[in-house]
Formats: sequence, structure tokens, C-alpha cells
Amino acid sequence: MHKSQLAGFIIDCQNADMDKAAEFWSEALGFPRQHTKDPAEANYELLRTGPNDLHIELQDVDHPSRVHIDIETDNIDAEVARLKKLGARRIKAIKGWVVMEAPTGHRFCVVRPQRARFQEEANQWPD
Amino acid sequence: MHKSQLAGFIIDCQNADMDKAAEFWSEALGFPRQHTKDPAEANYELLRTGPNDLHIELQDVDHPSRVHIDIETDNIDAEVARLKKLGARRIKAIKGWVVMEAPTGHRFCVVRPQRARFQEEANQWPD
Repeated sequence: MHKSQLAGFIIDCQNADMDKAAEFWSEALGFPRQHTKDPAEANYELLRTGPNDLHIELQDVDHPSRVHIDIETDNIDAEVARLKKLGARRIKAIKGWVVMEAPTGHRFCVVRPQRARFQEEANQWPD
Repeated sequence: MHKSQLAGFIIDCQNADMDKAAEFWSEALGFPRQHTKDPAEANYELLRTGPNDLHIELQDVDHPSRVHIDIETDNIDAEVARLKKLGARRIKAIKGWVVMEAPTGHRFCVVRPQRARFQEEANQWPD
């Protein structure tokens, strides 16, 4: 058995001024910015959506700008296997997560749990 | 004064078999499909996320597959004007909604209220 659910989405911004990008999306969506001083996080900007709300983040990327979905899970290998059976392709692993591509052509990521009520609310799947 | 908030996101699928596309995303995200028999809705597939949760829908499109964000509002003209001041461009109106482009290059839509607790939870903006 393992669990997964929609974690949220990432706004990938191609070679963006991340400060301006975060300012726009923060004001547009009405979520405050979660400022961080960690230099390892310089290419990320988090929006504060509330503890169990969807995780929404901006990311500085080289590829064309897009929005991608994140699926959170307590077992990345089992979840990748489940999604492959549904028709998704595994593209690559990056640090602690895995990039996949849906049969509809959308890239998405399988990540560790992000939302506060993951344990209570996530879907449970037989392995 | 008008109100707006994140409504959800639309999974735009280029020339897709919408039945297969909806089957994949329904299983991947763990949301049941909301079947409709309305032929006017044949190029849409809705996922059942719960009454006040984000609105997640698949749409059959001609352009390349992408995910786009929807912002819901009780005053589309006022919200489009607010977003233009923040740096977004108005692209076109389609039926009851307006397509815009963020300064980060992402297309998004300004739509009528979708979520159950819009009145209580949306952000309020001075006009």
C-alpha cells in the first residue's frame, strides 16, 4: 500500500527575473510571498497558500515557461510504477523527485509529501 | 470593489482522445470523473474535486498541450483591468471569459466564480 494526491503546481518561468515573477503571481492570485534567505533556494519562490492548501511555487527554468502539476506520495518508486501502468513515461530523477510525462504530453513531477493533511487525505493504492 | 481568487487549473490537451485523457488524469490525481451528456460540453471533461476545492478540468485544444491557471472573479472587466496594471496582457475574450498572458509568458483565464465559497474566501480589491 502507498498513498498519493495532488500536491499543487509549479509555475516554471524561463530565465525570469524571479523577484518580478513572484511579485506578479503573488498579486495576481492574492497569495503572499514566502521569502527565503537560503541561497540554495534562489531559483524558487514559494507562495503562501495555507498549511493544507495546494503547494504553489515558482521555479526559474531553462525550458519554455509552463505550469506543471506535482503529485505527492509517501513512496516515490511505487507511485512512479503506478503512473507508468496508467501510461505515463518516466523522464528522469532530480534530487529527491521524479519527472514524468503524461500520455497527454504534460510533464509532471512525483514528489515527497508537501501538504499538511497528506496522511489523512491522500488516496491509498494497493502495490 | 470586486473580488477574485484562484479558481483552479485546466489541463489543455492537444487533439486528444478526451475519454482516454480524462481516464489518465482521473486515475493519476485520484479524482473521479464528472461525466456529462451535454453535447455542448463534448470537448471538456471535469474532475470531481469537492465543492470548494480547486476546479480542475480537461479541455480539448488545437494548440500544444499545457496546463493553464484560471482566476475567478465577480467582475471580469475590473479583474482584467487589475491584472493589466500588474503587467498582464489581454489576449482575447471567449464566450464568458477572457484569456490573458502573464509577464512570465503563461496564458491564463479570467472566469466567473466556480468555487462554492467564493464570496467568503476570495480576495477583495479596490477598483
